[in-house]
Amino acid sequence: MTVLYAMDMLGTAVFAVSGALMAARKRYDIFGFIVVAMAPAIGGGTVRDLALGALPVFWVKDANYLLVTVAVASATFFLARFLERYMTALLVADAFGLALFAVVGAEKALVLGVEPLIAVAMGTITGCGGGILRDVLCREEPLILRRDIYATAALLGAGLFVGLEHVTHDRTMALAAGFLGALLLRLIAIRRNLSLPVYTDRKSP
Amino acid sequence: MTVLYAMDMLGTAVFAVSGALMAARKRYDIFGFIVVAMAPAIGGGTVRDLALGALPVFWVKDANYLLVTVAVASATFFLARFLERYMTALLVADAFGLALFAVVGAEKALVLGVEPLIAVAMGTITGCGGGILRDVLCREEPLILRRDIYATAALLGAGLFVGLEHVTHDRTMALAAGFLGALLLRLIAIRRNLSLPVYTDRKSP
Amino acid sequence: MTVLYAMDMLGTAVFAVSGALMAARKRYDIFGFIVVAMAPAIGGGTVRDLALGALPVFWVKDANYLLVTVAVASATFFLARFLERYMTALLVADAFGLALFAVVGAEKALVLGVEPLIAVAMGTITGCGGGILRDVLCREEPLILRRDIYATAALLGAGLFVGLEHVTHDRTMALAAGFLGALLLRLIAIRRNLSLPVYTDRKSP
Repeated sequence: MTVLYAMDMLGTAVFAVSGALMAARKRYDIFGFIVVAMAPAIGGGTVRDLALGALPVFWVKDANYLLVTVAVASATFFLARFLERYMTALLVADAFGLALFAVVGAEKALVLGVEPLIAVAMGTITGCGGGILRDVLCREEPLILRRDIYATAALLGAGLFVGLEHVTHDRTMALAAGFLGALLLRLIAIRRNLSLPVYTDRKSP
Repeated sequence: MTVLYAMDMLGTAVFAVSGALMAARKRYDIFGFIVVAMAPAIGGGTVRDLALGALPVFWVKDANYLLVTVAVASATFFLARFLERYMTALLVADAFGLALFAVVGAEKALVLGVEPLIAVAMGTITGCGGGILRDVLCREEPLILRRDIYATAALLGAGLFVGLEHVTHDRTMALAAGFLGALLLRLIAIRRNLSLPVYTDRKSP
Repeated sequence: MTVLYAMDMLGTAVFAVSGALMAARKRYDIFGFIVVAMAPAIGGGTVRDLALGALPVFWVKDANYLLVTVAVASATFFLARFLERYMTALLVADAFGLALFAVVGAEKALVLGVEPLIAVAMGTITGCGGGILRDVLCREEPLILRRDIYATAALLGAGLFVGLEHVTHDRTMALAAGFLGALLLRLIAIRRNLSLPVYTDRKSP
């Protein structure tokens, strides 16, 4: 449990950096950094907890999530200019957060007794929902809607976890498999620049 | 009850098409279709359930809503190019969904024991809220804020239902009257191109 | 308590005006005025109640909040052109609403038994969250993310209240001190045109 908790905090920190870096691009003040960092770091899990009725939401129950987010966003305000050279490392860290949040979100839903399909949806929402909030807040087109194998990775991870848990009843193994599946797919997609086909109509070339 | 349930699914499907067609215009991938379809199909009812504290939200309790939304959005991804010629049919179907969601939303609020005014607000939110979410997600100006007799129709339907139910205590009749009132007003507005006056200041011509 | 309730209604009305004036700038219809007014007037408190699990949300429990918002938004639709000359008065009124919502939001969280840090966050969210919703809805860049000493004032007010309440256990005095602290900082910031530094990278001049 402590390993999972430490990983959860790490995922929160990584996603907070992704939000803070977008705030840097928008030239916000330190409050803007904190607000935009909160969207990916705690937004997906908040939507999950609200939909499931698991209230108060997780970051009200355990203030560490908010503390980590505020600390990381504040640090990024002063250090963002040095982070630009580590963009690849950040992409890998983001993949780590995505994979982790997808399985942790699905697991939390299962514990609350929802149907497997809903648990998969909750995992996907936990992994991706915060990024959509971040983009809406910053008036950017949510990239996830258009190009990347990002939601796909979250869906795969959540689906693997829920499916394996259903068949084997071995929660730890299912968590690991779902996490690794999502992480691998996302890393391969980054490495090979893979993306899903987008909709085109007849008039397009 | 089964008639109401079938109509509810139909309304969900129709609203999912409206979201998916906007995703088509934005050239999103299939995940984009699903996410944008979820906004109008289940977004208004989600806001209603959250505000009322009726948790978990309806689509967590009954996975059919999510299944219908995902199926319709996926089908639209492949078929959107053939739907363009049926735009009028879709407008009528959308009016049907709006009228239905408005009375169903108000009814759900009444069952939970809120004041009549709040029930009317909840019906209006259930009918229109999802469309606002869809437009915000796609970075479009929410048209409902500016031009159409759309929220007006939802308000009329929810108001008729709540008012008649209060006076006659005949829920079925009140549901039918509210539904037909909203549907008629919306269809007349589409047909005659009616709209509400917008705000203008002195300097405008 | 009745004084606090009257101030709460006044804060709601003032924030509703701020939303309705943005709707005027966007030339929305009367429904647009109401929807955009709801965002700042009841949006921040809604996010607070959802996160805390204090459901149904406050405006479902007490319809007066919604009535005041709808009445103010409708009145502004007809009177907005006359309000332009009172912009300074409106800024002061908005500062009043901000300070009040920040301490009231923190107080509500404390009553529900959350940690002091979370109570401060809830006060800040109650004060500022609605304005962010309003800007997202109207596709404006949330100004609060970039320039003003606005969230800072809410944070100061909520922090003062929670800190003093913790030390002195005198809730009334702590409420007054937090309210006055936030109001003063915001008024000074308006008067002197103070703002926080924004992020700049090396390439900037």
